[in-house]
Amino acid sequence: MSQNVPDLISGVLFTDHYQLTMSQLYFREGIHEKRVRFDHFFRSYPDYGTHQAGYCINAGMGSLQQWLAQVSFGGPELEVLRQQKRADGTALFDQSFLQYLKQMGNFDGLSIQAVPEGRVVHPHAPQTVIEGPLVMAQLLETVLLATLNYQTLIATRAARIKFSGRGQLMLDFGMRRGHSFGANAGSRAALIGGADFSSNVGVSHSMGLPARGTHAHSMVQVYMALGMGEVDAFRAYANEYPEQCLLLVDTVDTLASGVPNAITVFEELRARGHEPMGVRLDSGDLAYLSIQAAKMLDQAGFESTTISLSNNLDEISIWQIVTQIQQEASRYGQDAESLIKRLSFGVGTRLMTSEGASALGGVYKLVAVEDDSKWKPAIKLSESAAKTPSPGQKRVLRLYDHQGCATADVLTPKDTVFDIKKDNKLFHPTETNRSRDIRADDVAIKEELLQAVPAYDPALDTQQELMQIRQRRDKDIASLHPGILRLVNPHIYHVSLSEPLHDLKQELIEDLRVKRKPALGT
Amino acid sequence: MSQNVPDLISGVLFTDHYQLTMSQLYFREGIHEKRVRFDHFFRSYPDYGTHQAGYCINAGMGSLQQWLAQVSFGGPELEVLRQQKRADGTALFDQSFLQYLKQMGNFDGLSIQAVPEGRVVHPHAPQTVIEGPLVMAQLLETVLLATLNYQTLIATRAARIKFSGRGQLMLDFGMRRGHSFGANAGSRAALIGGADFSSNVGVSHSMGLPARGTHAHSMVQVYMALGMGEVDAFRAYANEYPEQCLLLVDTVDTLASGVPNAITVFEELRARGHEPMGVRLDSGDLAYLSIQAAKMLDQAGFESTTISLSNNLDEISIWQIVTQIQQEASRYGQDAESLIKRLSFGVGTRLMTSEGASALGGVYKLVAVEDDSKWKPAIKLSESAAKTPSPGQKRVLRLYDHQGCATADVLTPKDTVFDIKKDNKLFHPTETNRSRDIRADDVAIKEELLQAVPAYDPALDTQQELMQIRQRRDKDIASLHPGILRLVNPHIYHVSLSEPLHDLKQELIEDLRVKRKPALGT
Repeated sequence: MSQNVPDLISGVLFTDHYQLTMSQLYFREGIHEKRVRFDHFFRSYPDYGTHQAGYCINAGMGSLQQWLAQVSFGGPELEVLRQQKRADGTALFDQSFLQYLKQMGNFDGLSIQAVPEGRVVHPHAPQTVIEGPLVMAQLLETVLLATLNYQTLIATRAARIKFSGRGQLMLDFGMRRGHSFGANAGSRAALIGGADFSSNVGVSHSMGLPARGTHAHSMVQVYMALGMGEVDAFRAYANEYPEQCLLLVDTVDTLASGVPNAITVFEELRARGHEPMGVRLDSGDLAYLSIQAAKMLDQAGFESTTISLSNNLDEISIWQIVTQIQQEASRYGQDAESLIKRLSFGVGTRLMTSEGASALGGVYKLVAVEDDSKWKPAIKLSESAAKTPSPGQKRVLRLYDHQGCATADVLTPKDTVFDIKKDNKLFHPTETNRSRDIRADDVAIKEELLQAVPAYDPALDTQQELMQIRQRRDKDIASLHPGILRLVNPHIYHVSLSEPLHDLKQELIEDLRVKRKPALGT
Repeated sequence: MSQNVPDLISGVLFTDHYQLTMSQLYFREGIHEKRVRFDHFFRSYPDYGTHQAGYCINAGMGSLQQWLAQVSFGGPELEVLRQQKRADGTALFDQSFLQYLKQMGNFDGLSIQAVPEGRVVHPHAPQTVIEGPLVMAQLLETVLLATLNYQTLIATRAARIKFSGRGQLMLDFGMRRGHSFGANAGSRAALIGGADFSSNVGVSHSMGLPARGTHAHSMVQVYMALGMGEVDAFRAYANEYPEQCLLLVDTVDTLASGVPNAITVFEELRARGHEPMGVRLDSGDLAYLSIQAAKMLDQAGFESTTISLSNNLDEISIWQIVTQIQQEASRYGQDAESLIKRLSFGVGTRLMTSEGASALGGVYKLVAVEDDSKWKPAIKLSESAAKTPSPGQKRVLRLYDHQGCATADVLTPKDTVFDIKKDNKLFHPTETNRSRDIRADDVAIKEELLQAVPAYDPALDTQQELMQIRQRRDKDIASLHPGILRLVNPHIYHVSLSEPLHDLKQELIEDLRVKRKPALGT
């Protein structure tokens, strides 16, 4: 699988056409190596329709770094570009530009700052900042957005689903519903955001985790079509995997066939010295069936078996299942809290495709250009004020109160001091006239969120890296106000501009408004 | 980019863990080479919430074939499997099973039948049928679903968007919003389903098409930050691309700055002997701005320029824009129909992620097993009758009336004759008791939908292939009743079971219901 077509389309040519045509223009105009700054940020949390996120979990940089370390404008890529034509049939790309790409077309000259993976991030505050030569910063846009937006979207959903399941074991089963090979990025992000394990064999291995799974309905069907029964399929599975015997019990009828047959096999297994793992329910009223299955398993002496649930789960359906068990378990003599502690959740489609909010609208905006060794802020006015990004080189600070609770993310120009020992005026990031005062007494700590991203290390211990990412995630989620964690209509976290940044932004907007008219007809 | 981690996770290890553990079980039980049949089909059309599809466009097989031709259980893949452990620390996979995978673990022994790409497909009727050894048919499941479901989902959305845009030029701009590298599959599917061109450089090239695009806001911003103006950016672009000069006019202010500056540059361009291409609008009231931009362009003598629209478009927003133009254009002295013929549409997020319906729930179900040289139908009962797949080896027939209109897709057992010269009783695919009669007079033609899929040909002329796929698509869409094409609440197309298939299914269900009880405690 060396230089074949899939590699070619996932390498440096994984980009929008206009990135290359603009790059050639910059090259020919001699401005291609001007240093620029692009900010990557999203403007609103995922809104799933009936429920909404109040925070996001940042993810994707590890994958982007790996891509950056592997791609280049090599022979096959340049040959593709050489074949691009203008309307008149002549070559679209000039030989000198292609030569430049061959020699200089790598991303080594870009410096990347980013919020570390696993950390909580909020709208308008840059997650990623790219500084470097215009041409390569521009050529990075498409792959950066496709990589970081999707993984942040899925890590966020995974965190919500884990939260709704009361911290019980949560497995990513979503790869078959993924957007083609995008499922690999989805499984990675799920493991970062909240899934404990994944069914994805390749990605689990690459992150130093074992893959997980049980068996499919088809296994039971094969045995039945061959003239045997569900119990024979279960027995074969138990013989092959005595220490990981989790049986899918709904191929025929969950309570009338699946659970009784599982108990038969569990008894045989125990007689041979192995404790069974449990059962998986994949259809029907999962709360009711969990209670009944637990009761049957208890009566047979298998009180500590897992009850694994799957079938179109997400944070809302899991929350409802847990709530129903709390209300209904005692009616059947089951202790609700003990039963909930036996549950695990296999989550697929709604995690992998973030059903209800299938994209995070993260953008990559030019905010500054260096000219004559001086950084000049860049601005874009559009029809809505909400879409005007904050200009210039900036820092992102997270403020914590004396209880260790994160209370605001503040954007401020790089060269200003934000003194938390003083009272500060903070401005809404998009609604110009809204401001509030934050008192020195209310702020205990300020923390810089953007960190320099080190070069990709192919020898990285990916398992250790994942554990560190998960620690950052848990720490950040623990520092959020409980209202922000609410699954439906969460509190809105404060993201603010410092007074100097607000003033700079207003000045530039005013400037552009004044300049606009004389530009007419020039 | 040879055997690195991305290749490893996109090869034969792109699978769910349980496919491998079930395969080992089949191997150890000696049933791994039993011939089986799996059907791939979806159960319902995409429902976008406020609007719904009444048909799907089949896509993805070309990508699956390419994958099948490239992957294998080679050294690195087997090494990953060798490292998988059981709970007690011993190897999960037996050496003899890995040896088998090394020697026999390829997909050459599978025969694939499928509805050709580009054709209209409907729920419950198999799009793809796999027959061959159990072990390899099982190992195909995950990649088949991830590949075919997503591309069918996107091809379907692209067809709807193309339809809502009255057939005007439609471009896929969605790769930055894709689910990571899944965007490549999305661009391919968009080009199959309705997009004329894509901004995706690699995929466009691989399909024999030129990639398309204009420029970004950042290009204008760079010039402004360097002390120049929007008009200077436009001029530079026109100099570099005189024959493809399409200018993005909303960086500052569409009507007060962008369009006047574009006209200035268009006049210079014309003076040098080139006709400008047009303008792109990316924010604001796109219908109103189109009318005003057209008026300004007309007054300046550029009546034949394109007006390209983008910004979160989908079939509903495009339909609304077209409708508003029809209502509003004459108020400003513009002819609505001529203006609509100048439009083109750049569609991103909502196409690439199929916003509102981010997954097609296609499934891959075991329907038959060969035993003693006889095929035995397999069935799975679950809690809902709607989820019980039609058993056995089947054919899928499309019936057309005397006007050439497709009226029903009929599933019938492979070994039965479906005689359209007779009246036939047809059954609802999931609601057992619903049947209807179709008269011989109402059917002119029956057509077999499933075709043998030839082996992957690396020398395939992909452009010619795409053109054939698009011809099939256009022919099939033209044969649909207009009510099925309706964007909102479409008519429901008939998918039916023939009487022999209905009888077989009922017999198997009854059989299983009777058998179920004695299975208790066996």
